[in-house]
Amino acid sequence: MPRETMTSLPVDCQATLTIDLPAIVDNYRAVRKLAANADAAAMVKADAYGMGIAEVAPALFHEAGCANFFVANLAEAVELRHHTPDACIYVLNGLFAGHEAYFTDHKLRPVINSPEQLALWKANGQGLPCALHFDTGINRLGFSPDETAQLLNHASPLKEVNIALVMSHLACADDKGNSLNKQQLETFRKISATFPGIPASLANSGGILLGPDYHFDMVRPGLLLFGGNPSLNAPLPADIHPVFTISGRILQVREVREGMGVGYGSTWNAPHRSRIAIVNVGYADGYLQVFNNVGHLYLAGREVPVVGRVSMDMLAIDITGPGFSTVSEGDEIELLGQHITLEKASELSNLSQYEILTGVRERYHRVYIPVK
Amino acid sequence: MPRETMTSLPVDCQATLTIDLPAIVDNYRAVRKLAANADAAAMVKADAYGMGIAEVAPALFHEAGCANFFVANLAEAVELRHHTPDACIYVLNGLFAGHEAYFTDHKLRPVINSPEQLALWKANGQGLPCALHFDTGINRLGFSPDETAQLLNHASPLKEVNIALVMSHLACADDKGNSLNKQQLETFRKISATFPGIPASLANSGGILLGPDYHFDMVRPGLLLFGGNPSLNAPLPADIHPVFTISGRILQVREVREGMGVGYGSTWNAPHRSRIAIVNVGYADGYLQVFNNVGHLYLAGREVPVVGRVSMDMLAIDITGPGFSTVSEGDEIELLGQHITLEKASELSNLSQYEILTGVRERYHRVYIPVK
Repeated sequence: MPRETMTSLPVDCQATLTIDLPAIVDNYRAVRKLAANADAAAMVKADAYGMGIAEVAPALFHEAGCANFFVANLAEAVELRHHTPDACIYVLNGLFAGHEAYFTDHKLRPVINSPEQLALWKANGQGLPCALHFDTGINRLGFSPDETAQLLNHASPLKEVNIALVMSHLACADDKGNSLNKQQLETFRKISATFPGIPASLANSGGILLGPDYHFDMVRPGLLLFGGNPSLNAPLPADIHPVFTISGRILQVREVREGMGVGYGSTWNAPHRSRIAIVNVGYADGYLQVFNNVGHLYLAGREVPVVGRVSMDMLAIDITGPGFSTVSEGDEIELLGQHITLEKASELSNLSQYEILTGVRERYHRVYIPVK
Repeated sequence: MPRETMTSLPVDCQATLTIDLPAIVDNYRAVRKLAANADAAAMVKADAYGMGIAEVAPALFHEAGCANFFVANLAEAVELRHHTPDACIYVLNGLFAGHEAYFTDHKLRPVINSPEQLALWKANGQGLPCALHFDTGINRLGFSPDETAQLLNHASPLKEVNIALVMSHLACADDKGNSLNKQQLETFRKISATFPGIPASLANSGGILLGPDYHFDMVRPGLLLFGGNPSLNAPLPADIHPVFTISGRILQVREVREGMGVGYGSTWNAPHRSRIAIVNVGYADGYLQVFNNVGHLYLAGREVPVVGRVSMDMLAIDITGPGFSTVSEGDEIELLGQHITLEKASELSNLSQYEILTGVRERYHRVYIPVK
């Protein structure tokens, strides 16, 4: 849509997504304290987990001193280079034949996942830095155990390659007691020890909460920056805070007679004469049907339940009772934010916090709170 | 991202979303045949169900003769007006105080949901057309039964209001045998009969498949245009076809030893030495974790299972066996499309077809097949 058209709209005709850049910067600083002996990169793949890479990455670079960023693919990296000309940018998907010049032209660092990729960078990387990624147990991307052993036994392939980082990724960091964490830690210790003087990195957000053993030289927080709790069995650190709010608007308030169904499939029937409010957010905005009859929104100082099925563009809440007697059409209501946190919404829906966060869609009127 | 940056990327560095505009036009024509005695509007809310309103609406307007469009809110309507200057555009969320001039300036038609909205349009609508929406059982938006009775008993409020359409919405159209369908039909018949000469509309995609009784003067297909089946118990009409394909790329192929876990939480363990491919699509692209260990992709002429948890930016498939022996890094693979249809993906995941469709995200390299 042309910019002049967008700015000429009344703000109350859409739901609003407010992104608090100072809170993201504060969460980054909190991570730095949690991993005091390590540097902290920022995971900004998937459009900074849906929060907007164009705004989030420059805020972290300029206001929080974050120098290293990770994205998933080359397209994200080229966009990020445009927003942060001087940052170190790592590309997790790795290096593919025919892409080398894009990396060197934009000064991007491939995360090398295989012997073939290493050979490509050796031949065409112009001596520029890369990362080496070792798979220590998640069986996703990176050198396999066999490939790792071969590489370490024949160190010559590493000559003439400028390795800026050695890294691996934890499979079960959300589960403190899982024995795979220690196995991966031990394996990565041995691997990283064969690269003296080269920074090592293992921990994602979950790994940061596993303690200093897991921090090595650089941690790679994602979810923690955006206010989510990456651990199933540890509390969210006290200085990590929500970074965004989704505010809907009440489109219509209606009385529903006892026994009447609300929404598609009539999955909720009024237990008595009820007062229902229709809110202008639905699954097309990322508020999925896993919230049918179990979601909570926050209105007039208290939580209020979702009733019936979530529609594409709206949902219904039950505002029966004196606590909501002043609620009327046009009122704002929190779907996610300070009161309905990612952790709480995840508990209610069984959707992961990561999916709720990255599921936030584009239809919102988007407002960024600037750092200064 | 600046346009010149985007076009300079290699196409194989991202997954691709291909949207087949001729197929959308063909589906619209098929709907016209299914509801041969009615006009057919097009539901293009939520960015045309994620398929792109800027491309879909002009294709339907210019190539299929679709003259009427429905969107959810004023922001969507103003954008659509930009793309189709001569279409009739209805705004389902209704009319709010302070918005009247946006409607009249852009020649938009509010779907009037309440007596208050009717009064607003009467006062400020400059005699321009609107729709009246009666709630006949979904208890969402529209005149309640009491408000409807009052309106019909005191017809004077309707004078000086230019009503172009009377409409209602079905709650259970996906379920052919549900008795609420007939109840809503009977109620709407009575209401619409009090507006002689004014077109009436009841049926969404599901309602279209309920048969001619439900078609009235205008049907309002959404899901059918985009290749989904809106019925739980009727087959997809033979001339409705998929309209989009999501093609991922294989990032890495790896051998996994017997017993090794794949992905976060090691939720899949190799039953024997296995060959695993990592694909560059994850839940941040809309391929959610409900597909963990149950999703199917289509590769080398057959279906192939998702193994382990879907990650934010990638997922793993099991390509063990001779049928996949030639599969290698860089290969394309279908996640959704001709073989893995919306209906099939919904069966596998229990996610609704609507959510799978509108969940398609922005990270894809997007290609539109033009109508001519």
